Amino acid sequence: MKSYRKELWFSTETRRKLINITPEVQSALYESGIQEGLVLVNAMHITASVFINDDESGLHKDYEKWLEKLAPEKPYSQYNHNTYEDNADAHLKRTVMGREVVVAITKGELDFGPWEQIFYGEFDGKRKKRVLVKIIGE
Amino acid sequence: MKSYRKELWFSTETRRKLINITPEVQSALYESGIQEGLVLVNAMHITASVFINDDESGLHKDYEKWLEKLAPEKPYSQYNHNTYEDNADAHLKRTVMGREVVVAITKGELDFGPWEQIFYGEFDGKRKKRVLVKIIGE
Amino acid sequence: MKSYRKELWFSTETRRKLINITPEVQSALYESGIQEGLVLVNAMHITASVFINDDESGLHKDYEKWLEKLAPEKPYSQYNHNTYEDNADAHLKRTVMGREVVVAITKGELDFGPWEQIFYGEFDGKRKKRVLVKIIGE
Repeated sequence: MKSYRKELWFSTETRRKLINITPEVQSALYESGIQEGLVLVNAMHITASVFINDDESGLHKDYEKWLEKLAPEKPYSQYNHNTYEDNADAHLKRTVMGREVVVAITKGELDFGPWEQIFYGEFDGKRKKRVLVKIIGE
Repeated sequence: MKSYRKELWFSTETRRKLINITPEVQSALYESGIQEGLVLVNAMHITASVFINDDESGLHKDYEKWLEKLAPEKPYSQYNHNTYEDNADAHLKRTVMGREVVVAITKGELDFGPWEQIFYGEFDGKRKKRVLVKIIGE
Repeated sequence: MKSYRKELWFSTETRRKLINITPEVQSALYESGIQEGLVLVNAMHITASVFINDDESGLHKDYEKWLEKLAPEKPYSQYNHNTYEDNADAHLKRTVMGREVVVAITKGELDFGPWEQIFYGEFDGKRKKRVLVKIIGE
Protein backbone atom coordinates (compact mmCIF):
# COMPACT_ATOMS: atom_id res chain seq x y z
CA MET A 1 0.00 0.00 0.00
CA LYS A 2 1.24 3.47 -0.92
CA SER A 3 0.18 6.72 0.68
CA TYR A 4 0.58 10.35 -0.28
CA ARG A 5 -0.15 13.57 1.63
CA LYS A 6 -0.47 17.14 0.47
CA GLU A 7 -1.81 20.36 1.97
CA LEU A 8 -3.62 23.00 -0.09
CA TRP A 9 -3.57 26.54 1.36
CA PHE A 10 -6.15 29.28 0.93
CA SER A 11 -6.58 32.87 2.05
CA THR A 12 -9.83 34.37 0.78
CA GLU A 13 -10.48 38.10 0.60
CA THR A 14 -14.10 37.63 1.62
CA ARG A 15 -15.65 35.94 4.66
CA ARG A 16 -17.35 33.35 2.46
CA LYS A 17 -16.19 31.86 -0.84
CA LEU A 18 -16.50 28.63 -2.83
CA ILE A 19 -13.33 27.57 -4.70
CA ASN A 20 -13.11 24.73 -7.21
CA ILE A 21 -10.09 22.65 -6.10
CA THR A 22 -10.54 19.72 -8.51
CA PRO A 23 -7.36 20.56 -10.50
CA GLU A 24 -5.26 20.69 -7.30
CA VAL A 25 -6.62 17.34 -6.11
CA GLN A 26 -5.93 15.84 -9.55
CA SER A 27 -2.37 17.14 -9.43
CA ALA A 28 -1.84 15.55 -6.03
CA LEU A 29 -3.18 12.28 -7.41
CA TYR A 30 -0.79 12.35 -10.38
CA GLU A 31 2.12 13.19 -8.04
CA SER A 32 1.21 10.17 -5.90
CA GLY A 33 1.36 7.74 -8.81
CA ILE A 34 -1.49 5.79 -7.19
CA GLN A 35 -3.68 3.92 -9.69
CA GLU A 36 -6.33 2.24 -7.51
CA GLY A 37 -7.45 3.47 -4.11
CA LEU A 38 -9.22 6.26 -2.26
CA VAL A 39 -8.51 9.94 -1.80
CA LEU A 40 -9.73 11.79 1.28
CA VAL A 41 -10.03 15.56 0.92
CA ASN A 42 -10.97 17.41 4.12
CA ALA A 43 -10.99 20.90 5.55
CA MET A 44 -8.46 21.10 8.39
CA HIS A 45 -10.55 23.90 9.95
CA ILE A 46 -13.95 23.65 11.58
CA THR A 47 -15.44 26.69 9.86
CA ALA A 48 -14.74 25.45 6.33
CA SER A 49 -15.98 22.62 4.16
CA VAL A 50 -14.93 20.34 1.34
CA PHE A 51 -17.86 19.16 -0.77
CA ILE A 52 -18.75 17.97 -4.25
CA ASN A 53 -21.30 19.69 -6.44
CA ASP A 54 -21.72 21.71 -9.62
CA ASP A 55 -19.40 24.51 -10.81
CA GLU A 56 -22.29 26.80 -11.74
CA SER A 57 -22.38 30.41 -10.54
CA GLY A 58 -26.17 30.53 -10.13
CA LEU A 59 -26.08 27.52 -7.84
CA HIS A 60 -23.30 29.10 -5.81
CA LYS A 61 -25.49 32.18 -5.24
CA ASP A 62 -28.28 29.83 -4.18
CA TYR A 63 -25.92 28.17 -1.66
CA GLU A 64 -25.04 31.57 -0.18
CA LYS A 65 -28.69 32.57 0.19
CA TRP A 66 -29.77 29.16 1.48
CA LEU A 67 -27.01 28.84 4.07
CA GLU A 68 -27.73 32.36 5.30
CA LYS A 69 -31.35 31.29 5.77
CA LEU A 70 -30.44 28.08 7.61
CA ALA A 71 -27.69 29.63 9.76
CA PRO A 72 -27.61 33.44 9.50
CA GLU A 73 -24.37 35.25 10.20
CA LYS A 74 -26.09 38.14 12.04
CA PRO A 75 -27.05 39.19 14.60
CA TYR A 76 -23.89 37.78 16.15
CA SER A 77 -25.55 37.85 19.58
CA GLN A 78 -27.97 35.06 18.63
CA TYR A 79 -25.22 32.46 19.18
CA ASN A 80 -23.70 31.35 22.50
CA HIS A 81 -20.41 30.66 20.72
CA ASN A 82 -19.98 34.34 19.82
CA THR A 83 -18.34 35.67 22.96
CA TYR A 84 -14.74 36.18 21.82
CA GLU A 85 -15.55 35.17 18.22
CA ASP A 86 -18.21 36.01 15.63
CA ASN A 87 -18.13 32.82 13.58
CA ALA A 88 -20.76 30.49 15.08
CA ASP A 89 -22.69 30.66 11.80
CA ALA A 90 -19.60 29.39 9.97
CA HIS A 91 -19.49 26.28 12.20
CA LEU A 92 -23.15 25.59 11.36
CA LYS A 93 -22.79 26.32 7.64
CA ARG A 94 -19.82 23.96 7.46
CA THR A 95 -21.93 21.31 9.22
CA VAL A 96 -24.57 21.52 6.48
CA MET A 97 -21.97 21.41 3.69
CA GLY A 98 -19.79 18.69 5.26
CA ARG A 99 -16.14 18.45 6.32
CA GLU A 100 -14.80 16.00 3.77
CA VAL A 101 -15.22 13.95 0.64
CA VAL A 102 -13.86 10.52 -0.19
CA VAL A 103 -13.37 9.88 -3.90
CA ALA A 104 -12.52 6.63 -5.65
CA ILE A 105 -9.36 6.40 -7.73
CA THR A 106 -9.61 4.16 -10.78
CA LYS A 107 -6.86 3.75 -13.38
CA GLY A 108 -5.01 6.72 -11.92
CA GLU A 109 -7.94 9.15 -12.23
CA LEU A 110 -10.62 10.61 -9.94
CA ASP A 111 -13.57 8.29 -10.61
CA PHE A 112 -16.22 10.95 -11.16
CA GLY A 113 -19.64 11.25 -12.73
CA PRO A 114 -20.14 13.87 -15.47
CA TRP A 115 -20.57 17.01 -13.33
CA GLU A 116 -18.79 16.24 -10.08
CA GLN A 117 -16.33 18.93 -8.98
CA ILE A 118 -14.61 19.29 -5.59
CA PHE A 119 -15.01 22.60 -3.76
CA TYR A 120 -13.41 24.27 -0.81
CA GLY A 121 -16.16 26.11 1.04
CA GLU A 122 -14.84 28.96 3.13
CA PHE A 123 -17.28 30.38 5.71
CA ASP A 124 -14.90 32.37 7.91
CA GLY A 125 -12.06 33.51 5.70
CA LYS A 126 -9.73 36.48 5.42
CA ARG A 127 -6.91 34.34 6.91
CA LYS A 128 -4.71 31.41 5.92
CA LYS A 129 -6.46 28.06 6.11
CA ARG A 130 -5.83 24.67 4.58
CA VAL A 131 -7.19 21.46 3.14
CA LEU A 132 -5.66 18.01 3.54
CA VAL A 133 -5.40 15.61 0.61
CA LYS A 134 -4.56 12.07 1.71
CA ILE A 135 -4.35 9.30 -0.87
CA ILE A 136 -3.99 5.60 -0.16
CA GLY A 137 -3.82 2.74 -2.64
CA GLU A 138 -1.49 1.08 -5.10
CA MET B 1 -4.24 -4.47 -1.60
CA LYS B 2 -7.18 -5.47 -3.75
CA SER B 3 -9.75 -3.14 -5.28
CA TYR B 4 -13.12 -3.68 -6.89
CA ARG B 5 -15.41 -1.31 -8.80
CA LYS B 6 -19.05 -1.57 -9.76
CA GLU B 7 -21.71 0.83 -11.01
CA LEU B 8 -25.36 0.58 -10.01
CA TRP B 9 -27.85 2.16 -12.42
CA PHE B 10 -31.25 3.69 -11.62
CA SER B 11 -34.07 5.31 -13.55
CA THR B 12 -36.90 6.39 -11.29
CA GLU B 13 -40.43 7.13 -12.54
CA THR B 14 -40.81 9.99 -10.09
CA ARG B 15 -38.70 13.10 -9.52
CA ARG B 16 -37.86 11.99 -5.97
CA LYS B 17 -37.43 8.48 -4.60
CA LEU B 18 -35.51 6.62 -1.89
CA ILE B 19 -34.26 3.14 -2.87
CA ASN B 20 -32.68 0.61 -0.50
CA ILE B 21 -29.47 -0.52 -2.24
CA THR B 22 -28.00 -2.58 0.61
CA PRO B 23 -28.43 -5.92 -1.25
CA GLU B 24 -26.65 -4.55 -4.35
CA VAL B 25 -23.74 -3.25 -2.24
CA GLN B 26 -23.52 -6.61 -0.45
CA SER B 27 -23.44 -8.41 -3.80
CA ALA B 28 -20.59 -6.19 -4.97
CA LEU B 29 -18.73 -6.94 -1.75
CA TYR B 30 -19.14 -10.72 -2.22
CA GLU B 31 -18.01 -10.43 -5.85
CA SER B 32 -14.89 -8.57 -4.70
CA GLY B 33 -13.85 -11.32 -2.29
CA ILE B 34 -12.48 -8.62 0.03
CA GLN B 35 -12.53 -9.59 3.71
CA GLU B 36 -11.12 -6.52 5.49
CA GLY B 37 -11.27 -2.98 4.17
CA LEU B 38 -13.56 -0.09 3.29
CA VAL B 39 -16.33 0.33 0.77
CA LEU B 40 -17.16 3.76 -0.65
CA VAL B 41 -20.65 4.15 -2.09
CA ASN B 42 -21.35 7.49 -3.77
CA ALA B 43 -23.82 9.12 -6.09
CA MET B 44 -22.09 9.96 -9.39
CA HIS B 45 -24.60 12.79 -9.90
CA ILE B 46 -24.88 16.04 -7.99
CA THR B 47 -28.65 15.92 -7.58
CA ALA B 48 -28.69 12.53 -5.87
CA SER B 49 -27.48 11.14 -2.58
CA VAL B 50 -26.24 7.96 -0.95
CA PHE B 51 -26.99 7.82 2.77
CA ILE B 52 -27.57 5.39 5.61
CA ASN B 53 -30.73 5.35 7.68
CA ASP B 54 -33.82 3.31 8.47
CA ASP B 55 -35.94 1.37 5.93
CA GLU B 56 -39.21 2.62 7.40
CA SER B 57 -41.90 4.10 5.17
CA GLY B 58 -43.10 6.67 7.74
CA LEU B 59 -39.60 8.05 8.08
CA HIS B 60 -39.28 8.26 4.31
CA LYS B 61 -42.43 10.41 4.19
CA ASP B 62 -40.91 12.57 6.91
CA TYR B 63 -37.76 13.01 4.82
CA GLU B 64 -39.85 14.13 1.83
CA LYS B 65 -41.76 16.67 3.89
CA TRP B 66 -38.67 17.89 5.76
CA LEU B 67 -36.51 18.32 2.67
CA GLU B 68 -39.32 20.20 0.93
CA LYS B 69 -39.41 22.53 3.92
CA LEU B 70 -35.62 23.06 3.96
CA ALA B 71 -35.24 23.39 0.17
CA PRO B 72 -38.62 23.63 -1.62
CA GLU B 73 -38.85 22.54 -5.24
CA LYS B 74 -41.22 25.38 -6.20
CA PRO B 75 -41.46 28.16 -7.17
CA TYR B 76 -38.61 27.37 -9.54
CA SER B 77 -37.93 31.09 -9.92
CA GLN B 78 -36.66 31.38 -6.34
CA TYR B 79 -33.30 29.88 -7.39
CA ASN B 80 -30.59 31.51 -9.51
CA HIS B 81 -29.59 28.08 -10.80
CA ASN B 82 -32.97 27.58 -12.49
CA THR B 83 -32.41 29.32 -15.80
CA TYR B 84 -32.10 26.38 -18.19
CA GLU B 85 -32.84 23.85 -15.45
CA ASP B 86 -35.41 23.42 -12.68
CA ASN B 87 -33.42 21.30 -10.25
CA ALA B 88 -31.69 23.73 -7.86
CA ASP B 89 -33.72 22.25 -5.00
CA ALA B 90 -32.30 18.81 -5.84
CA HIS B 91 -28.74 20.12 -5.44
CA LEU B 92 -29.65 21.48 -2.00
CA LYS B 93 -31.58 18.39 -0.90
CA ARG B 94 -28.64 16.21 -1.88
CA THR B 95 -26.37 18.49 0.16
CA VAL B 96 -28.46 17.86 3.29
CA MET B 97 -28.57 14.10 2.69
CA GLY B 98 -24.91 13.72 1.65
CA ARG B 99 -23.10 12.42 -1.43
CA GLU B 100 -21.51 9.27 -0.07
CA VAL B 101 -21.07 6.73 2.68
CA VAL B 102 -17.98 4.83 3.72
CA VAL B 103 -18.67 1.48 5.37
CA ALA B 104 -16.24 -0.85 7.13
CA ILE B 105 -15.79 -4.39 5.83
CA THR B 106 -15.10 -6.98 8.51
CA LYS B 107 -14.82 -10.72 7.85
CA GLY B 108 -16.24 -10.24 4.37
CA GLU B 109 -19.42 -8.46 5.51
CA LEU B 110 -20.69 -4.87 5.75
CA ASP B 111 -19.92 -3.99 9.38
CA PHE B 112 -23.29 -2.54 10.31
CA GLY B 113 -25.28 -1.77 13.43
CA PRO B 114 -28.74 -3.34 13.80
CA TRP B 115 -30.77 -0.96 11.61
CA GLU B 116 -28.29 0.51 9.15
CA GLN B 117 -29.39 0.32 5.51
CA ILE B 118 -27.86 2.08 2.50
CA PHE B 119 -30.15 4.22 0.36
CA TYR B 120 -29.95 5.87 -3.01
CA GLY B 121 -31.75 9.20 -2.70
CA GLU B 122 -32.98 10.48 -6.04
CA PHE B 123 -34.02 14.16 -6.09
CA ASP B 124 -34.12 14.80 -9.84
CA GLY B 125 -35.04 11.53 -11.49
CA LYS B 126 -36.92 10.32 -14.54
CA ARG B 127 -33.60 9.60 -16.28
CA LYS B 128 -30.71 7.14 -16.03
CA LYS B 129 -28.31 7.88 -13.20
CA ARG B 130 -25.76 5.83 -11.33
CA VAL B 131 -23.97 5.05 -8.09
CA LEU B 132 -20.34 4.02 -7.73
CA VAL B 133 -19.29 1.20 -5.40
CA LYS B 134 -15.53 1.14 -4.82
CA ILE B 135 -14.04 -1.42 -2.45
CA ILE B 136 -10.46 -1.54 -1.25
CA GLY B 137 -8.87 -4.00 1.16
CA GLU B 138 -7.60 -7.54 1.36
CA MET C 1 -2.39 -3.86 4.47
CA LYS C 2 -3.32 -4.01 8.15
CA SER C 3 -6.75 -3.44 9.63
CA TYR C 4 -8.02 -2.85 13.14
CA ARG C 5 -11.53 -2.72 14.57
CA LYS C 6 -12.87 -1.41 17.84
CA GLU C 7 -16.29 -0.56 19.24
CA LEU C 8 -16.89 2.35 21.60
CA TRP C 9 -20.01 2.08 23.80
CA PHE C 10 -22.14 4.87 25.22
CA SER C 11 -25.21 5.18 27.42
CA THR C 12 -26.20 8.80 27.96
CA GLU C 13 -28.47 9.94 30.80
CA THR C 14 -30.15 12.50 28.56
CA ARG C 15 -31.92 12.16 25.21
CA ARG C 16 -29.33 14.36 23.50
CA LYS C 17 -25.63 14.74 24.27
CA LEU C 18 -22.37 15.55 22.48
CA ILE C 19 -19.32 13.58 23.69
CA ASN C 20 -15.72 14.23 22.66
CA ILE C 21 -14.35 10.82 21.62
CA THR C 22 -11.00 11.98 20.21
CA PRO C 23 -8.96 10.31 23.00
CA GLU C 24 -10.73 6.96 22.44
CA VAL C 25 -10.10 7.11 18.68
CA GLN C 26 -6.44 7.99 19.32
CA SER C 27 -6.13 5.02 21.67
CA ALA C 28 -7.57 2.71 19.03
CA LEU C 29 -5.07 4.11 16.53
CA TYR C 30 -2.12 3.49 18.86
CA GLU C 31 -3.38 -0.05 19.56
CA SER C 32 -3.51 -0.70 15.81
CA GLY C 33 0.11 0.27 15.27
CA ILE C 34 -0.89 1.68 11.87
CA GLN C 35 1.34 4.54 10.69
CA GLU C 36 -0.18 5.55 7.34
CA GLY C 37 -3.79 5.05 6.33
CA LEU C 38 -7.38 6.04 7.04
CA VAL C 39 -9.63 5.70 10.06
CA LEU C 40 -13.39 5.49 9.65
CA VAL C 41 -15.43 6.42 12.73
CA ASN C 42 -19.18 5.92 12.39
CA ALA C 43 -22.29 5.70 14.51
CA MET C 44 -23.69 2.18 14.34
CA HIS C 45 -27.16 3.58 15.08
CA ILE C 46 -29.34 5.70 12.82
CA THR C 47 -30.32 8.23 15.50
CA ALA C 48 -26.75 9.17 16.39
CA SER C 49 -23.89 10.92 14.65
CA VAL C 50 -20.12 11.09 14.51
CA PHE C 51 -18.83 14.49 13.42
CA ILE C 52 -15.85 16.79 13.72
CA ASN C 53 -16.05 20.27 15.14
CA ASP C 54 -15.01 22.45 18.07
CA ASP C 55 -15.00 21.38 21.74
CA GLU C 56 -16.58 24.63 22.91
CA SER C 57 -19.60 24.61 25.22
CA GLY C 58 -21.23 27.70 23.68
CA LEU C 59 -21.16 26.11 20.25
CA HIS C 60 -22.66 22.93 21.64
CA LYS C 61 -25.60 24.96 23.01
CA ASP C 62 -25.93 26.54 19.57
CA TYR C 63 -26.07 23.07 17.98
CA GLU C 64 -28.86 22.05 20.37
CA LYS C 65 -30.91 25.16 19.61
CA TRP C 66 -30.24 25.02 15.87
CA LEU C 67 -31.06 21.33 15.47
CA GLU C 68 -34.27 21.83 17.45
CA LYS C 69 -35.19 24.58 15.01
CA LEU C 70 -34.38 22.47 11.91
CA ALA C 71 -35.99 19.26 13.22
CA PRO C 72 -37.98 19.83 16.43
CA GLU C 73 -38.50 16.91 18.80
CA LYS C 74 -42.10 17.90 19.61
CA PRO C 75 -44.94 17.63 18.90
CA TYR C 76 -44.24 13.95 18.26
CA SER C 77 -47.37 13.73 16.13
CA GLN C 78 -45.84 15.92 13.39
CA TYR C 79 -43.84 12.93 12.11
CA ASN C 80 -45.17 9.86 10.26
CA HIS C 81 -42.36 7.80 11.79
CA ASN C 82 -43.69 8.33 15.32
CA THR C 83 -46.27 5.59 15.57
CA TYR C 84 -44.53 3.10 17.86
CA GLU C 85 -41.54 5.40 18.40
CA ASP C 86 -40.96 9.06 19.24
CA ASN C 87 -37.54 9.56 17.67
CA ALA C 88 -38.17 10.80 14.10
CA ASP C 89 -36.47 14.08 15.02
CA ALA C 90 -33.35 12.13 16.02
CA HIS C 91 -33.16 10.55 12.54
CA LEU C 92 -33.32 14.02 10.98
CA LYS C 93 -30.86 15.62 13.41
CA ARG C 94 -28.39 12.83 12.72
CA THR C 95 -28.84 13.44 9.00
CA VAL C 96 -27.79 17.09 9.41
CA MET C 97 -24.80 16.17 11.60
CA GLY C 98 -23.67 13.16 9.53
CA ARG C 99 -23.12 9.46 10.24
CA GLU C 100 -19.37 9.22 9.97
CA VAL C 101 -15.99 10.84 9.60
CA VAL C 102 -12.92 9.61 7.75
CA VAL C 103 -9.63 10.89 9.13
CA ALA C 104 -6.14 10.58 7.63
CA ILE C 105 -3.44 8.82 9.62
CA THR C 106 0.05 10.23 9.12
CA LYS C 107 3.13 9.04 11.03
CA GLY C 108 0.92 7.15 13.45
CA GLU C 109 -1.23 10.14 14.43
CA LEU C 110 -4.65 11.54 13.53
CA ASP C 111 -3.78 14.11 10.86
CA PHE C 112 -5.79 17.02 12.24
CA GLY C 113 -5.92 20.78 11.90
CA PRO C 114 -5.57 22.89 15.06
CA TRP C 115 -9.13 22.63 16.44
CA GLU C 116 -10.52 19.41 15.01
CA GLN C 117 -12.10 17.10 17.58
CA ILE C 118 -14.26 14.03 16.98
CA PHE C 119 -17.68 13.93 18.64
CA TYR C 120 -20.32 11.32 19.23
CA GLY C 121 -23.66 13.05 18.80
CA GLU C 122 -26.46 11.27 20.64
CA PHE C 123 -29.98 12.31 19.66
CA ASP C 124 -32.02 9.45 21.15
CA GLY C 125 -30.10 8.25 24.17
CA LYS C 126 -30.85 6.73 27.57
CA ARG C 127 -29.78 3.31 26.24
CA LYS C 128 -26.63 1.49 25.17
CA LYS C 129 -25.38 2.47 21.72
CA ARG C 130 -22.07 2.20 19.95
CA VAL C 131 -19.57 3.65 17.52
CA LEU C 132 -17.36 1.70 15.15
CA VAL C 133 -13.70 2.58 14.68
CA LYS C 134 -12.18 0.85 11.64
CA ILE C 135 -8.58 1.55 10.69
CA ILE C 136 -6.83 0.42 7.53
CA GLY C 137 -3.27 1.09 6.43
CA GLU C 138 0.29 0.04 7.11
